Amino acid sequence: MIGFIGGTGPEGRGLALRFAMAGRDVFIGSRNQERGQSIAQELGQIVPSIASRIHGGDNKQACEKGDMVLITTPFEGQKDTLEALTNELKGKIVVNVIAPLIFEKGKGAMAMDVPEGSAAEQAQTILKDSIIVGAFQNASAEELLDPDKSADCDVIVCSDDNEAKQTVMELVETIKGMRAVNGGKLFNSKVVESITALIININRIYKAHASIKITGIETH
Amino acid sequence: MIGFIGGTGPEGRGLALRFAMAGRDVFIGSRNQERGQSIAQELGQIVPSIASRIHGGDNKQACEKGDMVLITTPFEGQKDTLEALTNELKGKIVVNVIAPLIFEKGKGAMAMDVPEGSAAEQAQTILKDSIIVGAFQNASAEELLDPDKSADCDVIVCSDDNEAKQTVMELVETIKGMRAVNGGKLFNSKVVESITALIININRIYKAHASIKITGIETH
Repeated sequence: MIGFIGGTGPEGRGLALRFAMAGRDVFIGSRNQERGQSIAQELGQIVPSIASRIHGGDNKQACEKGDMVLITTPFEGQKDTLEALTNELKGKIVVNVIAPLIFEKGKGAMAMDVPEGSAAEQAQTILKDSIIVGAFQNASAEELLDPDKSADCDVIVCSDDNEAKQTVMELVETIKGMRAVNGGKLFNSKVVESITALIININRIYKAHASIKITGIETH
Repeated sequence: MIGFIGGTGPEGRGLALRFAMAGRDVFIGSRNQERGQSIAQELGQIVPSIASRIHGGDNKQACEKGDMVLITTPFEGQKDTLEALTNELKGKIVVNVIAPLIFEKGKGAMAMDVPEGSAAEQAQTILKDSIIVGAFQNASAEELLDPDKSADCDVIVCSDDNEAKQTVMELVETIKGMRAVNGGKLFNSKVVESITALIININRIYKAHASIKITGIETH
């Protein structure tokens, strides 16, 4: 089972749908148990044949049931949310999907300065006994939520733990159209998270759902 | 004529070669006039048929002769170099190619914190009467310097001046294989510059010359 902390937003829903489409069981967590359940039900209606794989409830349940857990809360909620879940997440791979952003009037989206370097490094600071991996920050939630579309993009995966990174890279490639790129150690998540701001600004200019690819490398 | 400030490094040489291959006259500037001349001569030997388009000398000459000027110095030299050239660059489009990086032992390349936000914004602060455009920071110098290779990548172009941005985007697409992507206002250069650090770390992992592409947008 793949659990989602704060899985009711577009990014969490989009990834949960894709993992379920790839044959995995997923659990949408929320601060509010009923909301987690109802979003899970709604997601199942998008592709009824996989509805039985999509579960929902509160964040604590998502952490307990997930053998891997994705954080898809807004950055503002990350610290408090994770501090309350350190026990449930002990020993587990925790994938940080968050891109901390600010929106400045007259400019657009900008990466927020995070004292720890990145949202992923902040998560590692809080969850000392979990294994943090940064991934999926640049994937377009809109594209993920449209089951007829191929999620045509690279996912840059960063972690200080090579085995966990490998596990997440394999998970990435279960999603049709996605390629995993080894982005090195966890500190590189700072750049990957900031790319999300650039993509949002590019989306406005081109009225698109952009994402990125790394060219010039052979991954397989 | 396209001038290069600090054009003797790999990025400046690579871009100068490509612009000359595309039919433009280029001028390799250096702190040392003779070095600028000798690098221009060396570059001409790579593709002898275009050698007559590649000129060289000092940075001041590059600024005077160039109707557009690219900054390809190391970041450490940018401030002093530009402060000495404000008059020569008045009213001109100045393309900032610099990615300010630090290398931390046991980690790898990281984006350096720049008080102005980015190298491009620092250049704008110094060159108040020039029009700054950020571009080409993620292009692989090694690939550019191999005339048989297609420079297969996107160049994200950022500027607060739309007309200058358009001019540079057209210049980008004179290079075979390169596509220009409108990256919005100049502040977005911070993200683009930091991508260079990520690419360097990915290059080490994959033993490659990586670059990036934006997917999901239609540019033409």
